[in-house]
Amino acid sequence: MNFSIVRFILGWILKFESVFLLLPALVGLFYGEQRASGSYLISAALCLLVGFLVSFKPPVSRQLYMREGFACVALGWLVMSIFGAVPFVLCGDIPSCTDALFETVSGFTTTGASILTDVEALTHASLFWRSFTHWVGGMGVFVFIMAILPLMGGSTMNLMRAESPGPSVGKLVPRVMDTAKILYGIYLGITLLQSILLCICGLDLFESLTTTFGTVGTGGFGIYNSSIGGFSPVVQNVITVFMILSGINYMAYFYLLRREPRKIFAIEEVRWYLAVILASALVICANIRPLYGTLGEALRHSFFQVGSIITTTGYSTADFDAWPMLSKTILVLLMFCGACAGSTGGGIKVSRFVILFKTIGRELSTMIHPRLVRKIKMDGHSVPQEVVRSTHVYISVYFILLLASMLLISVDGHNFTTNFTAVAATLNNIGPGLDLVGPAQNFALYSAFSKYVLIFDMLAGRLELFPMLILLLPSCWKKY
Amino acid sequence: MNFSIVRFILGWILKFESVFLLLPALVGLFYGEQRASGSYLISAALCLLVGFLVSFKPPVSRQLYMREGFACVALGWLVMSIFGAVPFVLCGDIPSCTDALFETVSGFTTTGASILTDVEALTHASLFWRSFTHWVGGMGVFVFIMAILPLMGGSTMNLMRAESPGPSVGKLVPRVMDTAKILYGIYLGITLLQSILLCICGLDLFESLTTTFGTVGTGGFGIYNSSIGGFSPVVQNVITVFMILSGINYMAYFYLLRREPRKIFAIEEVRWYLAVILASALVICANIRPLYGTLGEALRHSFFQVGSIITTTGYSTADFDAWPMLSKTILVLLMFCGACAGSTGGGIKVSRFVILFKTIGRELSTMIHPRLVRKIKMDGHSVPQEVVRSTHVYISVYFILLLASMLLISVDGHNFTTNFTAVAATLNNIGPGLDLVGPAQNFALYSAFSKYVLIFDMLAGRLELFPMLILLLPSCWKKY
Repeated sequence: MNFSIVRFILGWILKFESVFLLLPALVGLFYGEQRASGSYLISAALCLLVGFLVSFKPPVSRQLYMREGFACVALGWLVMSIFGAVPFVLCGDIPSCTDALFETVSGFTTTGASILTDVEALTHASLFWRSFTHWVGGMGVFVFIMAILPLMGGSTMNLMRAESPGPSVGKLVPRVMDTAKILYGIYLGITLLQSILLCICGLDLFESLTTTFGTVGTGGFGIYNSSIGGFSPVVQNVITVFMILSGINYMAYFYLLRREPRKIFAIEEVRWYLAVILASALVICANIRPLYGTLGEALRHSFFQVGSIITTTGYSTADFDAWPMLSKTILVLLMFCGACAGSTGGGIKVSRFVILFKTIGRELSTMIHPRLVRKIKMDGHSVPQEVVRSTHVYISVYFILLLASMLLISVDGHNFTTNFTAVAATLNNIGPGLDLVGPAQNFALYSAFSKYVLIFDMLAGRLELFPMLILLLPSCWKKY
Repeated sequence: MNFSIVRFILGWILKFESVFLLLPALVGLFYGEQRASGSYLISAALCLLVGFLVSFKPPVSRQLYMREGFACVALGWLVMSIFGAVPFVLCGDIPSCTDALFETVSGFTTTGASILTDVEALTHASLFWRSFTHWVGGMGVFVFIMAILPLMGGSTMNLMRAESPGPSVGKLVPRVMDTAKILYGIYLGITLLQSILLCICGLDLFESLTTTFGTVGTGGFGIYNSSIGGFSPVVQNVITVFMILSGINYMAYFYLLRREPRKIFAIEEVRWYLAVILASALVICANIRPLYGTLGEALRHSFFQVGSIITTTGYSTADFDAWPMLSKTILVLLMFCGACAGSTGGGIKVSRFVILFKTIGRELSTMIHPRLVRKIKMDGHSVPQEVVRSTHVYISVYFILLLASMLLISVDGHNFTTNFTAVAATLNNIGPGLDLVGPAQNFALYSAFSKYVLIFDMLAGRLELFPMLILLLPSCWKKY
């Protein structure tokens, strides 16, 4: 391990975070929340100081292999979450350190699971910070830094690979920095578009911005106890559309920018993603129809909830825990499905399932025709054997982590449905689960130990397992 | 597909089943149950007639490739279950055809899940048949036929491969027929030993035989409503030991016969299997200690239940659905773990998990040292890449089948815990699950549609997924 480069990059992360923390300080100032505003300012100063001290000495070597990339990203997200939790404690909004860390990790990882029973009691500054962490975490803080700083030349691809979701990470353009710039440009564009639309539909600027951060980052923290349920149907529909758009591979928007819209539907993953949304929403609509007055209402709720869960956002317009079992089961399955690779959404990702189903098909064919040699193709290109292998390992690790976490939190004694969906909702970065962690409930019922297990799951889910797991290997920490 | 050989073998299966059906007829005669005895005689005659008609014409070609092996085994088990269900309906013990098929499939697949609310109301003939199906299904009917008939020379290995559990099926000795003979010899030996021991401990011959069939076949049908709970502690302990012995790779007993006991503990899978049992039982014992009067009692229940679940038997001495959540979660995880490959137990199998963990370790190492090439070893030999790949595909297919089945049976509206554990308990051939399908409950609550889904799961679980899935492929049915 090249420790000096890891230290150097962690320092930069903190410097950036200090800038981010100024925004809620300003919001607090605007709403006359002096204590909150002060807390965010102090936290920003703290980040700047520590960041400056840590990154003062330039790194001995600029070597950044895969292991440094993974360590940087895993530790970076951890450090960012710890410092991001400080203002919650300082301003008194979330007095418990464990709870504040849970809330911040839930924010940055775009999970949206909360330990708060009354969100509306929070200061505007904290509400803004909660939602803003979604926006930062959605596209990724390393991608952000790479878009702005020409940090270390070519080897930064290992940072991007560790932070970006999907079975194989591609560059849109040859240079990593340009790729990062394009990604953040698109991200910013979608954010602006949605917040303007929401303002037009009648939300005030604060509501519009926070809701947009939670949507485009596929986060899910609401600023009201009823999540999105209190907004008008039009606003809900706008959010539905933007949630679904945020779950699409950003490659699609790149094609749109290059005026090659036909290439978008050539992406197999996007076709499957939209097909799954359509099918699930229609089945759920038929299933929940008797609960609602009109077909339109049932359609609105079903599309909203399907969009919210498959993109791993976690907003809710209705208490889906009260829906029939078929609808609830579909939603639980969609939690695992997740959004497209290369989007801001979490979960296992549609493309991994496509690869999986194709491998299974091939395996069955091989049993019937043992001499057949067939390659797995996606979007017309054959998928490298390495990607297929790592996809299978990924899914196996995923389920082992799911089962192990369930075992650990079962010590608290809550029921099976609650534990299963609590882990599913954090590992997939969704937010709400079913039963005691349903959309009308929260995660306050768990012990501190279980909360740390779920914090690990949220980070592992966002960073796609391996960066977090590699930290646990002793051989990762050996010096060169 | 070489249809004539499939037809021919199915005929032989039925002829063998007609012999099996004579046993419950005799039991009925002994207990003076005339109607039941007659029903079993009629069913035996029916099997013989159909079997004779179907296998009268010898097959055009004796070619038996992997696809014929899979089709024979899948269809053979289906046909055997359908004809095995006939006497239940005829004698009036289980009037519904769906229920009778469910019970028979549950028997042959050694699941032990029942739709009966009152087992004790059954005739002795039916109780015997229920338990005897476990014994036939445990080691496998094709293995039985191969041990007795020199059916078709060398290519029968494809039948054995399709019916025997585990990631790779090995022959104990060069000839398939001899291997089958040795396996059934060991199986018969263990059966005799246990039934004699149970008789010595005070059970009558009927109780002893039926309980033994359920133990060594890792089935789980009891003849009392309290399952094993009504038997004395000594009897329960004997059953615990034999359940655990039945979950061990039969290779171990082969080494014992050849007087090479040291080789047994050289089998990595056996070491892991015993370690998992010990660790789980001790944790559960500590967890349930307050519920029971003495430490001895807690130990007896915990070892019994862990042995019963990991070997996928499904007997119970206590209503573990009333145990604390930690114990219940451990039991649910053990359902997936399953017994050793090459035993009569079901589940994913310990060896698959060992391969899985080793692959994950290798994958993580490769990320740290990209140029490292490491082979996966087991018992000192390197595992072929093909076995590693098919293990991963197996686990993926497994979880997809689990989730798909959960979705299908959720239409009935029962709760999440019930549905999840109902599928886990049938796919892994356990028997009881949690909540509404817990050890004190049964599967009668599900609709006919859901029962057929669970029937498919039981067969898919016993035959290790692929034979059942291949039947669904159109290209499997093409003529040469």
